[in-house]
Amino acid sequence: MYFTSRFLYPTTQQHCCCRTTHSDAKLKDPFTLAQRDLTSLYDDIKKELFVSKDELKFLCDYYFDGKGKAIRPMIVVLMARALNIHSNRSGDLLPGQRAIAMITEMIHTASLVHDDVIDGSDRRRGKRTINEVWGEKKAILAGDFILSAASMALARIGNITVVKVLSQVIEDLVRGEFMQLGSKENENERFKHYLEKTFKKTASLIANSCKAVSILVNSDPDIHEIAYEYGKNVGIAFQLVDDVLDFTSGANNLGKPSAADLKLGLATGPVLFACQQFPELHAMIMRRFSSNGDVDRAWQYVIQSDGVEQTSFLAKRYCQEAIRQISMLRPSPERDALIRLTEMVLTRDK
Amino acid sequence: MYFTSRFLYPTTQQHCCCRTTHSDAKLKDPFTLAQRDLTSLYDDIKKELFVSKDELKFLCDYYFDGKGKAIRPMIVVLMARALNIHSNRSGDLLPGQRAIAMITEMIHTASLVHDDVIDGSDRRRGKRTINEVWGEKKAILAGDFILSAASMALARIGNITVVKVLSQVIEDLVRGEFMQLGSKENENERFKHYLEKTFKKTASLIANSCKAVSILVNSDPDIHEIAYEYGKNVGIAFQLVDDVLDFTSGANNLGKPSAADLKLGLATGPVLFACQQFPELHAMIMRRFSSNGDVDRAWQYVIQSDGVEQTSFLAKRYCQEAIRQISMLRPSPERDALIRLTEMVLTRDK
Repeated sequence: MYFTSRFLYPTTQQHCCCRTTHSDAKLKDPFTLAQRDLTSLYDDIKKELFVSKDELKFLCDYYFDGKGKAIRPMIVVLMARALNIHSNRSGDLLPGQRAIAMITEMIHTASLVHDDVIDGSDRRRGKRTINEVWGEKKAILAGDFILSAASMALARIGNITVVKVLSQVIEDLVRGEFMQLGSKENENERFKHYLEKTFKKTASLIANSCKAVSILVNSDPDIHEIAYEYGKNVGIAFQLVDDVLDFTSGANNLGKPSAADLKLGLATGPVLFACQQFPELHAMIMRRFSSNGDVDRAWQYVIQSDGVEQTSFLAKRYCQEAIRQISMLRPSPERDALIRLTEMVLTRDK
Repeated sequence: MYFTSRFLYPTTQQHCCCRTTHSDAKLKDPFTLAQRDLTSLYDDIKKELFVSKDELKFLCDYYFDGKGKAIRPMIVVLMARALNIHSNRSGDLLPGQRAIAMITEMIHTASLVHDDVIDGSDRRRGKRTINEVWGEKKAILAGDFILSAASMALARIGNITVVKVLSQVIEDLVRGEFMQLGSKENENERFKHYLEKTFKKTASLIANSCKAVSILVNSDPDIHEIAYEYGKNVGIAFQLVDDVLDFTSGANNLGKPSAADLKLGLATGPVLFACQQFPELHAMIMRRFSSNGDVDRAWQYVIQSDGVEQTSFLAKRYCQEAIRQISMLRPSPERDALIRLTEMVLTRDK
């Protein structure tokens, strides 16, 4: 069984050193620290996607505009440098580690492009989606194309274990999206299903790309596990916070309308917790909020419940586990930036 | 420049030994010879796609029903055995070669699933398409999923060159499909564009999977080139014949309605040759046969022209080049079956 109880319920035990470390105001901002590695990332992605056909090029460049948060490649480059220092090397990125940061962003973007077709979304990050601008056909192809370019770049790294680890991500992304199309009758199963989907759709990419940069610098499986567990726990926390923001953030902040998940028929953390207080939500969840007024009614129940607080609390526990894991690495500015990042994940408001 | 003049216009020079060999009535039927390797292929593919979610499983099993011609894996297993014998080994397949036969069929099927969504096709091989039965969303996911499972199986072979060679195929498939969505103003460019698209959409998979099984058994790049060139030339011939059959075969034979390409707005070999005799076709090609009566009028022009004969002749030249290449291998029943296969490609009527 892949999902152990540890996965579902992270330990809350916190490593003593990080209690002090992560509240240290002098810690470098992760974005600043990662900047030197990320500056040319989008240019490099565009080179990977170099295509003679103008339209395919425009399509692929469209999302790689360098205006995203680039949180995934940022975690990857910080993790790579922290692991290099832990392994008694210079903090400098190996070429393969840099490639993994790029591939991570490409896989993420390819999955967004297909998700937007599947959800029929017209906006993403305040921009019109590819399917909205160029139509579904070209959006399907653009997603396939970005993924194939990522696979080519992955093969060029030349490490078969890294290929395996990142191929697993692509499979997880598809399984996660497929899980999202289904719903679960039983309430306990439903929460497990939600966390499993969250892992596959969001955390697997971060966990496995952290593991991949570890594989390139260190042969110790315990170190790969630390990298993986940090990525997994931060990834799940990131998505839990995203699900909270869908209820608490206005349309302008998040770049997409609030309660978007309810409108898509999705019951995320806040709704699932709220359903424990308001069993009336059960029927609405089962019909995927498809009856007239369901979305508004469900929203009201969630706001009246402690669903948002409970989901935020769960996110915090995942972050604590991420901190516990990463604190096992030798101290470095990058390690500490990864600790600080967990705070930023929890406190972001968009 | 990837497409050399040799690519566009295969040499007609034929290797002396194959003149006698490929007309030999005693040559084993390629399908019979490949059968021992193909029997459990679809069961193995289903194992690769093992999924706990019932619906995703049904979707993925849907095309792997073992009722297809399996021409791609057949070529791969015959090529692998011919190459093994050429390299002084037993003809037995290496596990990696068998995996490549399976991956080839998986990549092919994944691309069909997405092509059917893009073309809005409701039937394929006499069956309803996945998008027709389960809807576009699930068809997009099913294609992604089959591709991700193929990538996982590819990584498990553990040979990075093989990963590179087959990742190139996925990129070619997408670029080919994208090319199909565009049309070319200039008539000379249009034919080159058509052949390039044909290579990318059909021949690249066969060429590169032949090369991949060669890489696993032999380190001589000349041998890889023979395998690749055989696959490329047979692949292009196969598609040229397919394009001819779209004009000459009834709906019942091919399992899809005739003139399907015209209805999709596509100008294939027969139309492009016909346009040299009937320049009236030019305007119709440019508007992708979208005006009322275009499909019928274009069809009439093609039938009155020698477009079908010229396309068939071109297919024959590609097959001759395929024979010339494969004849450089040491004789074996599998090599000779690959020679015989070129005849079957040319004479098939469905």
